[in-house]
Amino acid sequence: INIAVLPGDGIGPEVTREAVECLRLLSARRNLGLHFTEHDFGGVAIDHHGTPLPEATLHACLAADAVLLGAVGGDQWNDCPVRPEAGLLEIRQQLGLYANLRPVKVMQGGQWSPLRSDVAAGSDILVVRELTGGIYYGEHRLAPGEASDLCTYTREQVERVAHVAFKAARARSGKVTQVDKANVLATSKLWRSTVTDVARNYPDVALDHLYVDACAMAVVTEPRRFDVVLTENLFGDILSDLLSVIGGSIGLLGSASLGNGGPGLFEPIHGSAPQIAGLNIANPAGAIASAAMMLDELGLGDGGAVLHEALEATLMAGCRTPDLGGDASTSGFGEEVRDRLR
Amino acid sequence: INIAVLPGDGIGPEVTREAVECLRLLSARRNLGLHFTEHDFGGVAIDHHGTPLPEATLHACLAADAVLLGAVGGDQWNDCPVRPEAGLLEIRQQLGLYANLRPVKVMQGGQWSPLRSDVAAGSDILVVRELTGGIYYGEHRLAPGEASDLCTYTREQVERVAHVAFKAARARSGKVTQVDKANVLATSKLWRSTVTDVARNYPDVALDHLYVDACAMAVVTEPRRFDVVLTENLFGDILSDLLSVIGGSIGLLGSASLGNGGPGLFEPIHGSAPQIAGLNIANPAGAIASAAMMLDELGLGDGGAVLHEALEATLMAGCRTPDLGGDASTSGFGEEVRDRLR
Ligand SMILES: CC(C)[C@H](C(=O)O)[C@@H](O)C(=O)O
Ligand SMILES: CC(C)[C@H](C(=O)O)[C@@H](O)C(=O)O
Repeated sequence: INIAVLPGDGIGPEVTREAVECLRLLSARRNLGLHFTEHDFGGVAIDHHGTPLPEATLHACLAADAVLLGAVGGDQWNDCPVRPEAGLLEIRQQLGLYANLRPVKVMQGGQWSPLRSDVAAGSDILVVRELTGGIYYGEHRLAPGEASDLCTYTREQVERVAHVAFKAARARSGKVTQVDKANVLATSKLWRSTVTDVARNYPDVALDHLYVDACAMAVVTEPRRFDVVLTENLFGDILSDLLSVIGGSIGLLGSASLGNGGPGLFEPIHGSAPQIAGLNIANPAGAIASAAMMLDELGLGDGGAVLHEALEATLMAGCRTPDLGGDASTSGFGEEVRDRLR
Repeated sequence: INIAVLPGDGIGPEVTREAVECLRLLSARRNLGLHFTEHDFGGVAIDHHGTPLPEATLHACLAADAVLLGAVGGDQWNDCPVRPEAGLLEIRQQLGLYANLRPVKVMQGGQWSPLRSDVAAGSDILVVRELTGGIYYGEHRLAPGEASDLCTYTREQVERVAHVAFKAARARSGKVTQVDKANVLATSKLWRSTVTDVARNYPDVALDHLYVDACAMAVVTEPRRFDVVLTENLFGDILSDLLSVIGGSIGLLGSASLGNGGPGLFEPIHGSAPQIAGLNIANPAGAIASAAMMLDELGLGDGGAVLHEALEATLMAGCRTPDLGGDASTSGFGEEVRDRLR
């Protein structure tokens, strides 16, 4: 089983390293046969090859069983003609990764959450974000005195990601909340009617709709009302970041980006955090959670569950990086997780 | 001084009534010479005239010194060819109201906030949202199998609202945070460069930039870091609703929409809440706060300040509608505010 590892920029390499070490140990112990290759991606690829997604990297990803990504971006590439983030958008598109799954769970009674603990405790939400359409991929025009961005969606684009959300809801609490701005946007009207149609195939799943502005409020005031949140690309970007903080830190969360059976891409939802890069203080929990989601997806027995458990046990035991008010180092945290791997 | 009152739908009429009664009392006591006329707008105007913004209403607004609005919308108009919200978008455009000001202040140590009180206490933020451009006003196309929305901005559109934000920051803590998604969107790149240029005229104001996803997080984790938040139409819609909850209830907040010297429009930022309409339990604080902002803007001595004070004193005294956990009625709350008017 071939894993293409793209450490990327900023804290990407150091958090990815911890995740890969966890996977190596698990693979050896359980004979999973994981094989890793590393490839340039993002800003570092711009520096080495003049492009954030070199051909060689893309081919390695397409040929792999899964892709493990760190993070990309940093101010030093702000003036480049192509920015590191463009590589991220391109790899998502090239691999056809239309469904981005971002689970958020408030652990330990929400003690790290900025929300009152009675508000946050027990929240358990899966954001399903459409990842290869919308305003991210429409035409962008920039002239000196004006600019425009086009947001488009087709019915098929909405349908396929809606199926992912409804299937996920079946395995959870059976509720999908679809988020849009249907009182203003045509694409949102298409989303609403398409998702309503798809819902007919899942009579066991409850569906409701919410405007994105109302959803941003509800996420903070009553997060427990949500199970699966299904939304388009830009709203999903904003809402999943927002949701991450109710869990206490964006550093805790992993994500899976999936398409139609090709390799999935697994990455923490945090950014490259250049200001703390190389200091060995970044939280590798999001990268490790992403690695566990990768094992889940690869269907390698209970490897994923074991890694999720070790990660949670480490946090519960009080081992925490500075973003959670602790003094664990990145590598120290990784060690603690590996010590807890069965 | 002529005030055009548009009560609108749902709880709009009942909250607007309390605000108007406050204004009438103030006007009589202080000889402000306020004169009120009521006009159909929103869903109620669709029912009576087939359009959410009838000609007569538009003309009355254009001829007035200010417009006081309740709220619009409700599910019963979902299948109308033109929806109530379209009237709101049109009146904003017709009056040239390009700057929407939404102040958020956490009162009383944040006791009503879903955030931990150490996180929320002392927050004092002004959202300046561009209101007549962006994806709200670009072309919307809806065909059976696909849809699109166009987001456009010109440099002039960004400049004029940026000036409003920088001037406001001067009278506050001297900081503007401009929010966009410049790592993806062309319009955001235009925003960033234009706002950076405008900032040169305000060397006494500090400017920083934040991506909208990062901003959504920061608003919840460290709201005190913000003074003035300047952003485009859609991001402003989401962020101002989100910000409203850190203050404890969206029902508390008013807004002012201003253009180039014509009549301004003043409305609570909450919606029409049809499920509680007519029950006399809606919170009129947002409508009263909007009326106070109107007096501020009309430059009628300290009338606005007096109304703001009476409103805050009423809340401090423990008079609260159910959204804040109290049992005051809409009209009872209004009475209490009027009792406290000097
Ligand atoms: C870096 C950026 C382009 C990206 C996005 O907006 O998709 C990031 O915020 C994310 O959520 O993965
Ligand atoms: C009703 C809707 C069109 C409106 C908007 O999005 O502008 C509302 O949410 C607001 O913020 O005033």
